[in-house]
Amino acid sequence: MNKKISEIFELTQKILEASGVNPKSAREVTESIVDAEKRGIESHGLIRLKPYVDRIQGNLINAEPNIKIVKDNSSIMVIDGDNGLGQVVAIQTLEYCFEKLQTNSTVMATVRNSNHFGTAGYFSRIAAENGFLAIVASNASPTMAPWGGVNPLLGTNPIAMSFPANNFGDFTLDMATSGTAKGKIRTYERNGTDMPPGLAIDKDGYETQDPKTALNGSLLPIGQHKGYGLSMFIDVLCAGLSGASLSSETESMFKSGNVANTGQFFLLIKIEDVVDSESFKDRMESWFQLLKNSEERPGFEEILIPGELENRKKKENSQMVNVSETTYGELQEMAMKLNIQTD
Amino acid sequence: MNKKISEIFELTQKILEASGVNPKSAREVTESIVDAEKRGIESHGLIRLKPYVDRIQGNLINAEPNIKIVKDNSSIMVIDGDNGLGQVVAIQTLEYCFEKLQTNSTVMATVRNSNHFGTAGYFSRIAAENGFLAIVASNASPTMAPWGGVNPLLGTNPIAMSFPANNFGDFTLDMATSGTAKGKIRTYERNGTDMPPGLAIDKDGYETQDPKTALNGSLLPIGQHKGYGLSMFIDVLCAGLSGASLSSETESMFKSGNVANTGQFFLLIKIEDVVDSESFKDRMESWFQLLKNSEERPGFEEILIPGELENRKKKENSQMVNVSETTYGELQEMAMKLNIQTD
Repeated sequence: MNKKISEIFELTQKILEASGVNPKSAREVTESIVDAEKRGIESHGLIRLKPYVDRIQGNLINAEPNIKIVKDNSSIMVIDGDNGLGQVVAIQTLEYCFEKLQTNSTVMATVRNSNHFGTAGYFSRIAAENGFLAIVASNASPTMAPWGGVNPLLGTNPIAMSFPANNFGDFTLDMATSGTAKGKIRTYERNGTDMPPGLAIDKDGYETQDPKTALNGSLLPIGQHKGYGLSMFIDVLCAGLSGASLSSETESMFKSGNVANTGQFFLLIKIEDVVDSESFKDRMESWFQLLKNSEERPGFEEILIPGELENRKKKENSQMVNVSETTYGELQEMAMKLNIQTD
Repeated sequence: MNKKISEIFELTQKILEASGVNPKSAREVTESIVDAEKRGIESHGLIRLKPYVDRIQGNLINAEPNIKIVKDNSSIMVIDGDNGLGQVVAIQTLEYCFEKLQTNSTVMATVRNSNHFGTAGYFSRIAAENGFLAIVASNASPTMAPWGGVNPLLGTNPIAMSFPANNFGDFTLDMATSGTAKGKIRTYERNGTDMPPGLAIDKDGYETQDPKTALNGSLLPIGQHKGYGLSMFIDVLCAGLSGASLSSETESMFKSGNVANTGQFFLLIKIEDVVDSESFKDRMESWFQLLKNSEERPGFEEILIPGELENRKKKENSQMVNVSETTYGELQEMAMKLNIQTD
């Protein structure tokens, strides 16, 4: 169903505020959720609101965290999110990073005691919009087996990379280290269709294209051992350095009765301290044009720059967005339970 | 043919010295080449020596470079390799990084005017052996099409990540952003066998498993658009920030009559400034054991930690290594032309 952005925004913000989140923090989370919906990344949008609220109400997420820098050594910070909503922790971390970049050329932050923060690309893009080159990553609950293994012990551990590129806007690559996400497998299940090959194994370790079997099994990494290694390394940046839980020490936010202690990682570079930033942005734009103007393969209509499609969708959905009936029903139900007036 | 490591080492070093490389630099390049051979990465070992020497003799690589820090802003350096051999530039860059890490918790270096430096993992592993967590990347000549495209405009752009892990030794993930390398396709061609699916397209953009057709076409990235985006981002870290040539602006070292101006990127983190380094290494080792002890999939004998297999091969090949007759013949020929006495 088509819904006004303004309605979705207001409803989400009110639900969060009614759950005990202060207006500033509620707005930060709402902006991230609505941004994901506009960009067509429903898996990180409104469907996440209910587990966030459930976890606040179950004292598994802290609605009023005291987010602190616990270690600060020249260009690196360790940040304790005090079990706050992931988006709130991430925005505060970005602010600490921006402050540090007034006197430093680079800054890294490794974050513990955080939670699911929506899309990693949302935060790396904010950094790019402020003129920085950025890497943002998060670990996640275990859904992917180590390469050659059966048991899901690693997270999809998404990583996002952004930088600005003149009129073109930003480059934003936001990728999981697995070939697909559990959420997408659930979509195949709902639609009653088989999955493409190479994405998952069953509980005995045999490759499967049947979504139901896959959901009881494990995701496969991109590039075989490569995605496996990447997932491990992201776990180390996010949790090994910060003291957060490794993926193997956590459980799904949809199921777990425990605090998540998610780990996140931020790396920002002040482009203008390294290279003339206007020339950089011009060079990037010409390069994008070179790639985009090259010949397409049969079956492809366009060569896209990472993030381009999502930026286009965001423009298209600036006023209205398509929300599934189930998701909208869930919002209405939450609003009712929290005694929020809706039209 | 089985060859003594000591013989291969001496021969390589003498060939480099006779080509005008000073003994210290010749040793640095030789160590990297012999390390690759021991680890079973022949594609980055002895077969690279002839193009290195050819390029020195053709004035396309500078045997006596003056490697300089041209920009130094708190935690980031821009380094000009003065067109030196990639390994010599990289070792010098690591030394600059280690120096900076005496007072800093992190350091980044982006390098221009470099050349092919062997394996990226060789350098990230040296950093890990010195107690650091490290990322090392390089761009490369274009062999991979942008996702959805036909023309090879991007490099395989390898990236390596390392950190220490107690008795286990190091974690080293060294990966190209393509599913395979041109060198491996040449091996399929020599053996007269088809390639696995999903690795390459022909010159018209259709997927192919025929190595001959693939060699005239383009490599495919890992994880479809993901490997494509990763390759682009690595190009930006290595060349966009440093002023080196982007992959699309370069040609293969085996063919090109131009200076390479390769770009490289180094990021090192002083683990002990962020987390107790002994606890970190212990935690990593227990985690590796957890993954390794989990259940194997049918068809897999062992779950490996990234770098484990290469470390094992290095131990096995500590005295002797298998070198192809062609490669050994090439060494002999170079030695003869350079009037080097061999036994």
